[in-house]
Amino acid sequence: MPEKSITLLEVAALVSGELIRGNPEGYIDGVQTLAKASGLQATFLSNRKYKADLETTQAALVLLSEKDEVPEGSKFAVIKLANPYVGFALLQQYFHPLKTSSGTIHPSAVIHESVRIAENVQIDAHVCIDADVEIAANVVIGSGCVIGAGCVIGETSILHPRVVIEKGSILGKRVIIQSGTVIGSDGFGYAWSGSDFIKIPQVGNVILEDDVEIGANTCVDRGAIEDTIIRAGAKLDNLIQIAHNVDIGERSALAGQSGFAGSTVIGKGCQFGAQSGVAGHLKLVDGSIVGAKAGVIGDIKEPGMVSGFPAVPHRHWLKASALFDRLPVIWDKIKRLG
Amino acid sequence: MPEKSITLLEVAALVSGELIRGNPEGYIDGVQTLAKASGLQATFLSNRKYKADLETTQAALVLLSEKDEVPEGSKFAVIKLANPYVGFALLQQYFHPLKTSSGTIHPSAVIHESVRIAENVQIDAHVCIDADVEIAANVVIGSGCVIGAGCVIGETSILHPRVVIEKGSILGKRVIIQSGTVIGSDGFGYAWSGSDFIKIPQVGNVILEDDVEIGANTCVDRGAIEDTIIRAGAKLDNLIQIAHNVDIGERSALAGQSGFAGSTVIGKGCQFGAQSGVAGHLKLVDGSIVGAKAGVIGDIKEPGMVSGFPAVPHRHWLKASALFDRLPVIWDKIKRLG
Amino acid sequence: MPEKSITLLEVAALVSGELIRGNPEGYIDGVQTLAKASGLQATFLSNRKYKADLETTQAALVLLSEKDEVPEGSKFAVIKLANPYVGFALLQQYFHPLKTSSGTIHPSAVIHESVRIAENVQIDAHVCIDADVEIAANVVIGSGCVIGAGCVIGETSILHPRVVIEKGSILGKRVIIQSGTVIGSDGFGYAWSGSDFIKIPQVGNVILEDDVEIGANTCVDRGAIEDTIIRAGAKLDNLIQIAHNVDIGERSALAGQSGFAGSTVIGKGCQFGAQSGVAGHLKLVDGSIVGAKAGVIGDIKEPGMVSGFPAVPHRHWLKASALFDRLPVIWDKIKRLG
Repeated sequence: MPEKSITLLEVAALVSGELIRGNPEGYIDGVQTLAKASGLQATFLSNRKYKADLETTQAALVLLSEKDEVPEGSKFAVIKLANPYVGFALLQQYFHPLKTSSGTIHPSAVIHESVRIAENVQIDAHVCIDADVEIAANVVIGSGCVIGAGCVIGETSILHPRVVIEKGSILGKRVIIQSGTVIGSDGFGYAWSGSDFIKIPQVGNVILEDDVEIGANTCVDRGAIEDTIIRAGAKLDNLIQIAHNVDIGERSALAGQSGFAGSTVIGKGCQFGAQSGVAGHLKLVDGSIVGAKAGVIGDIKEPGMVSGFPAVPHRHWLKASALFDRLPVIWDKIKRLG
Repeated sequence: MPEKSITLLEVAALVSGELIRGNPEGYIDGVQTLAKASGLQATFLSNRKYKADLETTQAALVLLSEKDEVPEGSKFAVIKLANPYVGFALLQQYFHPLKTSSGTIHPSAVIHESVRIAENVQIDAHVCIDADVEIAANVVIGSGCVIGAGCVIGETSILHPRVVIEKGSILGKRVIIQSGTVIGSDGFGYAWSGSDFIKIPQVGNVILEDDVEIGANTCVDRGAIEDTIIRAGAKLDNLIQIAHNVDIGERSALAGQSGFAGSTVIGKGCQFGAQSGVAGHLKLVDGSIVGAKAGVIGDIKEPGMVSGFPAVPHRHWLKASALFDRLPVIWDKIKRLG
Repeated sequence: MPEKSITLLEVAALVSGELIRGNPEGYIDGVQTLAKASGLQATFLSNRKYKADLETTQAALVLLSEKDEVPEGSKFAVIKLANPYVGFALLQQYFHPLKTSSGTIHPSAVIHESVRIAENVQIDAHVCIDADVEIAANVVIGSGCVIGAGCVIGETSILHPRVVIEKGSILGKRVIIQSGTVIGSDGFGYAWSGSDFIKIPQVGNVILEDDVEIGANTCVDRGAIEDTIIRAGAKLDNLIQIAHNVDIGERSALAGQSGFAGSTVIGKGCQFGAQSGVAGHLKLVDGSIVGAKAGVIGDIKEPGMVSGFPAVPHRHWLKASALFDRLPVIWDKIKRLG
């Protein structure tokens, strides 16, 4: 059900690319994968795994990188650009703009009288908003969300259904949170008296800066004393654990099921693979890359990739892992030698 | 509080077994473990760990496999069958049938006027159902569930409280989803422009085929372009991450906290241990078995079990793991040699 | 915004410490970290990582252990005590007492007529409570919680928003559960018939004893036949998986994203690191300590720490891990030798 279209010339401008082949006035009406595109749909080549599909694609337009060759005998239009994946993202945004506020507040929402709500805010059914919350313009709050006292939700932020934002949390502009995520739960803080755990009240807050996005069923604990901070543009996937007082640097990307123990400070532009973990009270330099399932137990002082548990430089881990697999052979050899 | 009973003859028929000992007209009124069964309760022996309990059980009836010996001096009735664990499941289903719809819709539910609801549907308090949703007969939707626009919920499906089904998701018949699970959250898709993450709108849907069951607080992301699919009869445990465009094969079983990265295709009848993970864009053949905590980073082309990270054939991993433990000894030996 | 103050003499009594330096009638009005404390705030030294901050802290009072030296030239008051971290916890509890019930029941809550509610219970908006539930005095039930039929919630317990307690669950006194957590979801129980999974009805319940605390988005499955039990004073972090029939011993502490497979019995005073896992049907002795990311696949019969997967004694694992890192060197050496 295409509802929109765009000419090839407009696509080239949108993605900052060059129309190499095809009619500038021709148009496309959607985006699909190389294998599935047909009719007036555009597609792109980014992951080399799918290169063979370029030979057979039925797409009307393909976004290619500057070095990609156009297959002989192919008929599709071609736009070349620096990064076809970015072009694809921009084109998808054209066809599928982000959800915007309907500007309506459902009567079943329970909103404390002290809450300040700016213009054009959407609040869906069964939402609860406690005292002194401040909601900026164009915010969308999905069904069943609960927002605790004193929270601030910045402009154009989107909370999917059933998100909980505990008291005192501060969300910047254009923050997006998927369903089921909990922001501001108590950190896991107890002092052992010798016979009992004594709960340490968790009195810090959570700050999510502008353009932070968080997946589904993720947990960001409130700080113990100071705040837990996710800095501007950081992206978090699903089912992630952010413990109290963690500080995630700008534009860092955290994959699903990764975990970050208390008071750890992550630099800018870091990347974390799925199911990776970082111990508490560590510092990871800007540009740290942590492989899937890795476990970091010491500071990272140089940018680059680490893997394994305890994490070591990635190349190192690759070599050692290959040999782990050969331990029985090594052992046999040693027995023969010795 | 037994409310039901069944004769031994009926049990034998129900479980396709043979009554080896005991009065066919005698009856049982419930099921318990070997250690706890008493009075008129039945039990079963399946896990060998509990074999010693067979000597002392006070059960009225024990389901045994054909090769199990009946202990001397024991008095319980005996039904032998191919698989006592299956017999136990069937007997429990007799005593504890699945929840069925009460046929009532709570007045606090917020249901868009365009929603089509078939006969005998139960919708509990504080549910929200958006436009153009289609709900088939006998469905149960627990308190606080949120169902997005255009979803289809197939016959006799059960959503426990606080499940979120985002727009466009298609659920087959007899689907069961435990509380807190999110179906159709945005996949983790961004293109890096060199200075910023550009969000890729996630416009695929989620399809859960017939008889799929999903545990609590699990996440199934919607597809980026095409759909994410969980095929018929697949069973997913709690806290699992299913990324965009994953395809889980029929009757595969995924244990708790496992994770599946984007676009990976899992065959039929596969099994995944707890906390295991599979990297993106892979294909795992039918009958693949992945051990607990394993990490799969390449295609699996032959059925069988793999373990470790990077995952290797299970027997291989067992041997290498045993030697890992002996690395200090190996090292000492090498130092002496060299 | 300090609202409370306490004299140094009162602090010494509260934390069972001795005022070594400072005016007993002087007072403090809050607690901060060594680095951030100023004005009339107290602080403490516990983690050695922050010892250098003792030289420069602007705190009015520092809690120190008996063996800590007071830096020369420092001006802050000093209270010495056995465990400054416990002192900090007690002082924070003084300034930030736990949430207490407002005693009000929101009119949007849907509460079955058979529910028994003791005095001074707070039930927030959009809560659903099913038949025959029993709620003791001073309980707080946050917005959007769902409580199934026949549950018991003990005195002074606190459920944060959007917790689900499935039918038949029994919660003791002073239980605290963070948002999004699911208690009593069905265990992952199926019998494989040779062609299909047959669902085993999960008919056990969940028991959370007194003083149990559970983090956000954690799952505690109901028992298959018998109950799942979390014993008195046990503390669970976020995103933890507790499978059916697990038994967690008194005052054990489970860190985030750890997982416990079915029927495993954990002793008293055990500790589990983040992302650790324990296989099913095991017994772990009192005082077992399992390192982060470790995987336990056999019984633990002696107290002490294990690490790795399969888990081995921690010191052993440390040595082997260090050598894992040197496998390429070991291999080179062997090749030269042989």
